Amino acid sequence: MCQGFKAAGISAEIKKNNLKDLGLIVSDVPVTVAGVFTRNQIKAAPVLLDMERIQSGICRAVIVNSGNANCCTGEQGRKDAIRMAKAVAVKLGVPEEMVLVSSTGVIGQFLPVEKIEAAVPDLFDALSPDGFADFAEAIMTTDTIPKKLSRKVEVGGKSFSITGVAKGAGMIRPDMATMLSYVCTDVEADSVTLQEMLSDAVNLSFNRITIDGDTSTNDTVLLLASGKSGVSLDDGDVKAAFKKALEGMLIDLAKMVVKDGEGVTKLVEIKVHGAASDDDAQKMADTVSHSNLVKTAFFGEDANWGRIIGALGRAGVVLNPATIDISFNDIVIVKNGLWCGAEAETDATKVMKLSEFTVLIDVHLGMGSSSCWTCDFSIDYVKINADYRS
Amino acid sequence: MCQGFKAAGISAEIKKNNLKDLGLIVSDVPVTVAGVFTRNQIKAAPVLLDMERIQSGICRAVIVNSGNANCCTGEQGRKDAIRMAKAVAVKLGVPEEMVLVSSTGVIGQFLPVEKIEAAVPDLFDALSPDGFADFAEAIMTTDTIPKKLSRKVEVGGKSFSITGVAKGAGMIRPDMATMLSYVCTDVEADSVTLQEMLSDAVNLSFNRITIDGDTSTNDTVLLLASGKSGVSLDDGDVKAAFKKALEGMLIDLAKMVVKDGEGVTKLVEIKVHGAASDDDAQKMADTVSHSNLVKTAFFGEDANWGRIIGALGRAGVVLNPATIDISFNDIVIVKNGLWCGAEAETDATKVMKLSEFTVLIDVHLGMGSSSCWTCDFSIDYVKINADYRS
Repeated sequence: MCQGFKAAGISAEIKKNNLKDLGLIVSDVPVTVAGVFTRNQIKAAPVLLDMERIQSGICRAVIVNSGNANCCTGEQGRKDAIRMAKAVAVKLGVPEEMVLVSSTGVIGQFLPVEKIEAAVPDLFDALSPDGFADFAEAIMTTDTIPKKLSRKVEVGGKSFSITGVAKGAGMIRPDMATMLSYVCTDVEADSVTLQEMLSDAVNLSFNRITIDGDTSTNDTVLLLASGKSGVSLDDGDVKAAFKKALEGMLIDLAKMVVKDGEGVTKLVEIKVHGAASDDDAQKMADTVSHSNLVKTAFFGEDANWGRIIGALGRAGVVLNPATIDISFNDIVIVKNGLWCGAEAETDATKVMKLSEFTVLIDVHLGMGSSSCWTCDFSIDYVKINADYRS
Repeated sequence: MCQGFKAAGISAEIKKNNLKDLGLIVSDVPVTVAGVFTRNQIKAAPVLLDMERIQSGICRAVIVNSGNANCCTGEQGRKDAIRMAKAVAVKLGVPEEMVLVSSTGVIGQFLPVEKIEAAVPDLFDALSPDGFADFAEAIMTTDTIPKKLSRKVEVGGKSFSITGVAKGAGMIRPDMATMLSYVCTDVEADSVTLQEMLSDAVNLSFNRITIDGDTSTNDTVLLLASGKSGVSLDDGDVKAAFKKALEGMLIDLAKMVVKDGEGVTKLVEIKVHGAASDDDAQKMADTVSHSNLVKTAFFGEDANWGRIIGALGRAGVVLNPATIDISFNDIVIVKNGLWCGAEAETDATKVMKLSEFTVLIDVHLGMGSSSCWTCDFSIDYVKINADYRS
């Protein structure tokens, strides 16, 4: 249990079939807060509002709806996001700037803000320290399972907790935009330090996953710290322990998001070693991770290294074909740019039948390295994304 | 008929089922030549060889095989490409540097060069001024139809001809790499001018199409000019007429390539107007053209403008959401960044049922414009690319 926080998730009838679609996290006291938002030039109204409000470094609550992204909704969208936050602020008796807001779902339609306002009293009634599971469910769009992790970290005889939730990656469904994640901790931290640590951890986790390469207008990650554990980042080894725990949790949530992506059957880590720089390695890992030909080969369980070589070659990095090695887990299939033969291919094909495996690419040009998590690209992906509104 | 050229296409048993897989273009005299090659860092052996040989600005013949890309084949690959060209040079009695060579097909396997050498006499026997249709067939891999165009251009009471062939775009099948195109003309032109005109025309045509966003290791476009028409680029309006004819032919061949792409049911032009610069417009057209979510929506005939907005936002260009207009042919579905309502959407959906249509995006920020041709992304694309070697 993460001290100082309560959460809830209920149905406000924004989505069909009485599914949970409205979530709330409330803290007992003002908490420090940090946020990372979509880099897409088209930002939804709640994203723009949060980017302003988070400047204060403190907040009391986050309200999130699914089923409507409140994006491409102009001035009306901004007013609706403010109304949604205000409903919570009034109930808490705090300034409305102390409430953050997220939305996820259909783009380009106005938010049914009256439904949300009407549901806020029930949402407060449902608040509980154990409410994060319901919250995780309420923010789902095309996710098939709610994503929630809780961890207790012991350090120097004391302990603190972290609870994190996340929902579906990227724009994995027609109008269903958005990767959202909310992480609460009872460690004590100032907002500047929190922001640095969150930005670093997001770069190692949510910024290294891909399902379809389409970024969303609503992506939001928030980190809230209540300080209620009495353990401070300034105490001895706490900062290092918190950094490790935060990174580990965001990486695990990011991987859960990929595994639950539209039509996904495999989680694949693309590791690049031996690049001239980490930046070059990242470009190569990113290009291979996004290649439709590589991803369809994963789906077909085909150890098609020619496609990996082809993707490496268009990554915008200088390469020597004669120094490239490629392995699937521990099976080397390409050595010095040449095929290792039918036996290696048979063994590599066995690796590809696993639900999780690693493709290791060593370009032998330097010490740079990086990695991405990607998935296969299946017939179901196309079906789901083509058929959505027909 | 393009004066000064003969062509042929036969089976050398590189591919299965006795399909044509070896093509030859021969000129009666040395011709000027220009080439554009893949920008992929991993270049197949024949591409590297042609890039050297084309420096002289002249050639006598081009030999092309399908069924094997001769890529990722190291030193052996280079030797095989040289042998393949030499077989033609010996038969013609010219220096081997006067013969260019292309390959397309499986990556990472050695070329069956003995089969090719054995077939060269039959290939010469098959040469004919009307042999371009057979040649177009011989260079096919996953293409379903051969792509060949011939045009006669009248200018100032004289005339010249252009004949062009092309094969399948990008890496549209597992190991079946390569977009290849060969254009012959009987106009008289020096190789420097030819190169400038070819580079410009490729930028307006083959560099503006996408099927799956994966570039190949073997992409090659060659332009050969025999001068046999007696019409020179230096005569009056000939240069302008040739430029127009060349661009028109390459655009038409490029569109044929997209329409015949793996699993493609629709050809869609993405036009961007009103950008701050042509470069910005190109970035936006390119990002929308490559978006899997946009392409699956085309397949599903879903006028899903939210996906187009999302792709625009990640194009790396500064945008104002409130000034974006989007139309499907003449149906405006988004005006000033807002949805135009259910009626517009119904009409736009009708447009999407066409086999060819245009998406016009006006961002109202300046005078920059650009366009791309893309296609839908279908279940068949995934099936073909996943199942290839299973």
